[in-house]
This record gives sequence, structure tokens and C-alpha cells, in this order.
Amino acid sequence: MGLCLYDLAASDPERRFSPYCWRTKLALMHKDLAFDTIPWRFTDKDAIASSGQGRVPVLIDGDRVVFDSWTIATYLEDAYADRPSLFGGEGGRAAARFVNGWADSVLVGGIVRLVVNDIFAHLDEKDRDYFRESREKRFGMKLEDISADRDKRVGGFRDSLDPMRILLRAQPYLGGDAPNYADYVVFGPFQWARCISDFRLLAPDDIIVAWRDRLLDAFGGFARRAPAYAS
Amino acid sequence: MGLCLYDLAASDPERRFSPYCWRTKLALMHKDLAFDTIPWRFTDKDAIASSGQGRVPVLIDGDRVVFDSWTIATYLEDAYADRPSLFGGEGGRAAARFVNGWADSVLVGGIVRLVVNDIFAHLDEKDRDYFRESREKRFGMKLEDISADRDKRVGGFRDSLDPMRILLRAQPYLGGDAPNYADYVVFGPFQWARCISDFRLLAPDDIIVAWRDRLLDAFGGFARRAPAYAS
Repeated sequence: MGLCLYDLAASDPERRFSPYCWRTKLALMHKDLAFDTIPWRFTDKDAIASSGQGRVPVLIDGDRVVFDSWTIATYLEDAYADRPSLFGGEGGRAAARFVNGWADSVLVGGIVRLVVNDIFAHLDEKDRDYFRESREKRFGMKLEDISADRDKRVGGFRDSLDPMRILLRAQPYLGGDAPNYADYVVFGPFQWARCISDFRLLAPDDIIVAWRDRLLDAFGGFARRAPAYAS
Repeated sequence: MGLCLYDLAASDPERRFSPYCWRTKLALMHKDLAFDTIPWRFTDKDAIASSGQGRVPVLIDGDRVVFDSWTIATYLEDAYADRPSLFGGEGGRAAARFVNGWADSVLVGGIVRLVVNDIFAHLDEKDRDYFRESREKRFGMKLEDISADRDKRVGGFRDSLDPMRILLRAQPYLGGDAPNYADYVVFGPFQWARCISDFRLLAPDDIIVAWRDRLLDAFGGFARRAPAYAS
């Protein structure tokens, strides 16, 4: 039996937008593991109750239930050690965790303020009250106000990506000559935005766009085929 | 013959403050290589002319002349492959380059605005005109004005370090259970500030302070013994 991933979906069940689930899907592709996905909504808590918590990604591998994108990546690396490495050794695993923290704070934290209304617009009806309530509580303001100043804010967001630009001027991928999990960690948030928003996060001539394009093309265009915007 | 490092010095030749030279010194300690240092000032261009450029660190290893802290680290890793690894494999080397870019932009870029006047105050007389002119040109303002608002600015700097805090809540070092070059990359800028300024970059209870303390204690307290402030 193949692996199975609970994957956050919009009202259109084919529109899958979680940055963390994208990390896991690319990790599974990298390991060349066959997997099915089950569309999941924020309020489908019962479906993943066996994981003991309420968020995706949740990966089912036989009788193993693994949650949290970082934990899943390390699980896959160890359980499928004979497959292509996600980290390129122990030093790569340790340093990828820094990239993971950078992406979670700078990228996810920066992007959510730019696209949170676009997320809301794509949600399944049953998820909307939960999403509005939890995000308005987190930001202390109305959902519609969070990204009201995004045209002014996007410049600061772009500036915050300089570490990626410095890296990409030196080598084609975070993984070196080829992508590895450190790339998927950073790609996930960009793909999240791309799946639910036409807001232009990056200037077209940004070196990060060229890197993102290479990852969209990876694995036979796996990420590019997903329902998304061209932004 | 041992290795020899040209190491940026203040007017007190024992006060060595370059963030990049600190990376190299800890890399040499990690490799357990004996080395001498030669105090060098910004204007001592002739002394390192054999490197074909004008900045330190410059490492002399027999008839090899290697410059740039990242290039030196990869040189040491490959030339002394039988010694403890700086990167923990190829994935670690690739991802450490991202950490290097993050530290150069967020840390070096953030810290310089907070301590540039303290650097100037410690410089050898012969370096002062060069330093004032080059930094005033870079920032487009008088040296004294660059860090005039540092008490207001330090909060934003501290916020920018969240990726380190996320990492340190998960593992003790960027290198994992033990420090490696990714740690030295980040430690260098903190040690730079510590060597020339009593300005408090970090709140005392910051988890980053505990990590910095562990690196100050590494290699028998090598970095802690250097002339510096307690900040």
C-alpha cells in the first residue's frame, strides 16, 4: 500500500495551498515514493484525529501516522534511507532546520499579511468562520484590514529575501547543484501564495523567480500543474 | 610550517574584530590546525597584495594564498579532509552557504548600523580616514549619524533574529548537537560587535545569548579570551 497524505484544500478540492503540505509533497517526489492525497479542510479535525493533533500535513505510512512537515521530512529520510537523500548528510539536515525557521518566520510570516484575504476567498464555506476568527484574533484586526496596505508592504517583504538572492548568485539551489529539502522548505511558501493569489510577490526579473521556475518544472512539472495563478 | 592568517586589528593590535576573520579563526580551531595571526589594518594593502585583492581574511598555507572567509572554509574542508568536518557533508556545505548569506545581510548589515562609531573609535590612526570616507559614502551620511538612532533601531534588529531563535529551540547548534561552520558564520558578526562595542545587541535572557556563550567557551574559551566587552 502506498503512502497517503492529508492535504489542505480550497473549496475547489484540487486547489491545494498549504505551504507545509507542499514541502511534504516535494519531499515525497524527491524520494520517488508513490503517494495519494486526500483533500482536507481546516475544520476536518476528526479525519486526522489519529495523529493526536489538528493540522496538516499528516502522512499515513502503513500503521505509522506522522504529522508536522519537518518531522515528516526527517521520518522519510530515515525510513527510506536507500532513496535519494533529502538533506545530503547530517550537516545538511541540521542546517536545513535553520532554513526551515527562516522560511517559517520571514516567508510565511511575510506572505500571510499580503495574501490572507485571497486565502479566505478560496476557502470552502465550512472553513470560513474558523479562518476569519483565528486570523483576526492572531493579527488583532479585521481580515480585510490585514493586507489592506500590501502594495506598500511588499517592498519590505522583497528586501527580506536578500539571503536567498545572495545564495542564488553563488549556486543554483539551496541544496547545491540540485534541489533538496532546503529548497522545498523555501518553495512551499511561494507555492502557497501562487495557489491562492494573483498578487505579485516578486518582481519578474528577481533571481528568485528563476529559481522558483526551476522548482515548478522539477519532477516533470509536478508543482506547475497544480491549480494556481501565474503570479 | 603552520598556517598564517592576516587578521584585522584595532589600534590595540590584540583587539581583532573582523566578523569574517573570526569565522576563519574558529574554522581553523575546528580543524585543529595550528596557526599564527598577523595583525592587519584596512590600509595595509601591500601586505596582502599576493592575494590579488585588498581585504582580510587572507590565509597563507605554504605556497597557497586563499582569501574570502567562505572560500577559506571550503579550502580547509577539502585540503584537510581527514580533520573534523566543517560542514558535515555536501548538503551541509550547500545549506551553510545560505546561512552565510543570511548572516552577511541580516547580521552584518544590521549590526554595522548599531556599532559603526564604536568601530571607528577603536581604529588605528592610519585607518580612520579610509574608514570614515568609505562608510560615509556607503550610508550617504556622516559616520556619527549612522548609529544615532540605535536605541530605537535595536528592537527591529532583535526581531530579525527570529530564525536563530526558532532553530535554537529545536537544537543546540546550527550544526546540530555540536557546532560547525554554520555556527561560526553566525557567531563571527556577534563577536565582531563584542570586540569593539559595549552596546547591548541582545537582551540578557535571549536564547541566542546562551548559544553565543557556548561558542565563547568552545575550544577552551578561545573566543572569550579575546580583548572584548562583556556586552
